[in-house]
Amino acid sequence: MRKKLLMIGLLLCATALSAQDWTPLFNGKNLSGWKKLNGKAEYKVVDGAIVGYTKQGTPNTFLATTRNYGNFILEFDFKIDDDLNSGVQFRSESKEDYRNGRVHGYQFEIDPSPRAWTGGIYDEARRMWIYPMTINPSAKSAYKNGQWNKARIEAIGNSLRTWVNGIPCADIWDDMTPTGFIALQVHSIGNNASQEGKSVSWKNIRICTVNPEQYQTPATPATPEVNCIVNTISPREAQEGWKLLWDGKTSNGWRGARLTTFPPKGWKMEDGILKVLKSGGSESANGGDIVTTATYKNFMLSVDFKITDGANSGIKYFVDPTINKGAGSAIGCEFQILDDEKHPDAKAGIKGNRKLGALYDLIPAPDDKPYIKGQFNTALIIVRDNQVEHWLNGTKLIEYLRNNQEWNALVAYSKYRNWENFGNATEGYLLLQDHGDEVWFKNIKIKELK
Amino acid sequence: MRKKLLMIGLLLCATALSAQDWTPLFNGKNLSGWKKLNGKAEYKVVDGAIVGYTKQGTPNTFLATTRNYGNFILEFDFKIDDDLNSGVQFRSESKEDYRNGRVHGYQFEIDPSPRAWTGGIYDEARRMWIYPMTINPSAKSAYKNGQWNKARIEAIGNSLRTWVNGIPCADIWDDMTPTGFIALQVHSIGNNASQEGKSVSWKNIRICTVNPEQYQTPATPATPEVNCIVNTISPREAQEGWKLLWDGKTSNGWRGARLTTFPPKGWKMEDGILKVLKSGGSESANGGDIVTTATYKNFMLSVDFKITDGANSGIKYFVDPTINKGAGSAIGCEFQILDDEKHPDAKAGIKGNRKLGALYDLIPAPDDKPYIKGQFNTALIIVRDNQVEHWLNGTKLIEYLRNNQEWNALVAYSKYRNWENFGNATEGYLLLQDHGDEVWFKNIKIKELK
Repeated sequence: MRKKLLMIGLLLCATALSAQDWTPLFNGKNLSGWKKLNGKAEYKVVDGAIVGYTKQGTPNTFLATTRNYGNFILEFDFKIDDDLNSGVQFRSESKEDYRNGRVHGYQFEIDPSPRAWTGGIYDEARRMWIYPMTINPSAKSAYKNGQWNKARIEAIGNSLRTWVNGIPCADIWDDMTPTGFIALQVHSIGNNASQEGKSVSWKNIRICTVNPEQYQTPATPATPEVNCIVNTISPREAQEGWKLLWDGKTSNGWRGARLTTFPPKGWKMEDGILKVLKSGGSESANGGDIVTTATYKNFMLSVDFKITDGANSGIKYFVDPTINKGAGSAIGCEFQILDDEKHPDAKAGIKGNRKLGALYDLIPAPDDKPYIKGQFNTALIIVRDNQVEHWLNGTKLIEYLRNNQEWNALVAYSKYRNWENFGNATEGYLLLQDHGDEVWFKNIKIKELK
Repeated sequence: MRKKLLMIGLLLCATALSAQDWTPLFNGKNLSGWKKLNGKAEYKVVDGAIVGYTKQGTPNTFLATTRNYGNFILEFDFKIDDDLNSGVQFRSESKEDYRNGRVHGYQFEIDPSPRAWTGGIYDEARRMWIYPMTINPSAKSAYKNGQWNKARIEAIGNSLRTWVNGIPCADIWDDMTPTGFIALQVHSIGNNASQEGKSVSWKNIRICTVNPEQYQTPATPATPEVNCIVNTISPREAQEGWKLLWDGKTSNGWRGARLTTFPPKGWKMEDGILKVLKSGGSESANGGDIVTTATYKNFMLSVDFKITDGANSGIKYFVDPTINKGAGSAIGCEFQILDDEKHPDAKAGIKGNRKLGALYDLIPAPDDKPYIKGQFNTALIIVRDNQVEHWLNGTKLIEYLRNNQEWNALVAYSKYRNWENFGNATEGYLLLQDHGDEVWFKNIKIKELK
């Protein structure tokens, strides 16, 4: 008898724990509860699924829920022709005052192409890619071409995360839009007749809006988080040891490389952006370089930068501001920041070793680096003792070892040849370069490594 | 009773096995059986030990056994003042027709200096160092300063090996002198008055000449062997996988880099030496470079080389003789061979990267490399996939990694910049360079690695 009671008790508990309250968003029969926005592609109900068909001469078309959803867990199945691209919007909007009603906002990417970014997050008609799957490449194999795939989106507070067939894909921390509609995309095909009538299908679309945080999947350390909230540290970043190196407002933690205080001119902080101002393109001749007030040994340094036309700047590390007694920038290893197209230094140097992302004058970055022109890009510098890496927007550009004969031989050929033991310091200051061109910085974060 | 018999039996066995027949060479009382040679330093018997005292104005003095020993195991204890140098000769000779009776031959080195080469083998008044302790550096700590130390020498056939306090030190394979005396050295102090009267002592000197091979210590893989018999492979080298790359007599295994046969001029083989002949100092303009007929991937390549005044040559690896269609040497990574003092290329290049031992035009060797002027020197090149090392006379000069961004960046600065993918081949030919200067090669050996 007691056993029976215990079992009933356990069953009740289990029921309570799994009593996730799912609401279907699609009734399997018609498009009740949905409305078409933005374009003229057609959506039909076929065999219990919503099928969207591509159509020439219309922009991206969206079939959007008539109501908005803020905190939720959304699940759906999807299937798509191999040569199409699609996606599912969430927390999205269409407003008269934003590009004449253009649907915009978070999109769960559906990408059957060899690039395989399905599950990534694209910020439709707004910030573009905020979670390309280069950030989490091991999840690129989650999507299976030519068959039904299962999607899951958890949008709870600032945490937006995606899954494809149970595999965690994207993980962003953002506060831009707390609520909005869900919408199924039929991508524009321009006037390409051969793409006409291709299809993308969705079924089993269901949402949980009742206490979704109770059913939130625990964080996956292997899935990197992207924090989109400018000049902040997300809870997960804090847990992982990241710290703000610039608070977004004040000069705390920084000084002029040749000063004891922050430069009185040449640098400006506004709207959460740290700007080095235009002064004619000379190296460290206006406000001068700025350096951290502390030195760093082993670390990951992440900096978002955006350049103006033809600009030159750089992020230096292992910097010793005292060794260059003459004019010009302080001495250290440099993650080069440059307008490769318009600044003449891109053509100088050896085989591209003065272009953006290069270890300046020493090691070129690959030609196909994922630089996004006119936008903020993320530079990441990783130092583990003598092993150093340069990353750009989630892609590793360069990896090198210092403090060895090969490194010293390379330095001996470069413009650093006369700085004794260049690049071999155990630790050093971090530096943002004033090269007389306007360049913007934000999200300057550091994680010290052991 | 049975137990007793068994024990007696075991004891008899043990006695038989340990019945090594030792003969004392010193009676503990006087110098009977010894004679003084070469110099005028004094030897006395003090407290059961032979003590030699340094003396100004006399050359090296030796107290030699009156009879000769060929195959033997010799043991003795020795003690020396810290600022002296000494040694014990074995299989040594003093002949009217060799430098007027100069004592010469193998010497067990006694070296209390910080260099700590005690147990090494020096070929007194003949070939100089044949087993410097740089070859076996871990054994340099065997000798203990300021106290009695135990020495052991096994000279059996071509195998000559030493121990200090039970730790294996030198191991050579040589056939130069099969028999000779044993002699205790008091080193010359020139006219240095402050060194006068310093002492070195020996006691418990005993020798086994009856079946010494029966008591030979098994080979120690950790103690490198030096094979002094020119153009041969010793039994141990054979066991370790070494092979002759040049047989000492014929052109078997070699051809001109631009020929299908061995060059008809410009190279000569005589007295076990492969000579590239003088032709005016031009690169590959006379007989031209020679290459192996086979390619090699992972290997240790050992080459003895001796240069004439002002000469230039080199040993290349990862060579593809087909890619340079123009004049000059075939393309590959080069262990540079050069008279650093007299050839102008030593001053060209960057920070010494064209001097002897350098990876030519890429990575310099250290300034304090152990090059022996006017003698044969041993170049060793080790390739383990992308990791490559240059050694000279047992000292590692250079270590580098290829097939990575740092390597490619270094190459991009060098004279190899226009050879696509320079130095990144998985395998290649081995090459001896004709640079128009006379250079001698011998003991060209290779051990292929997995």
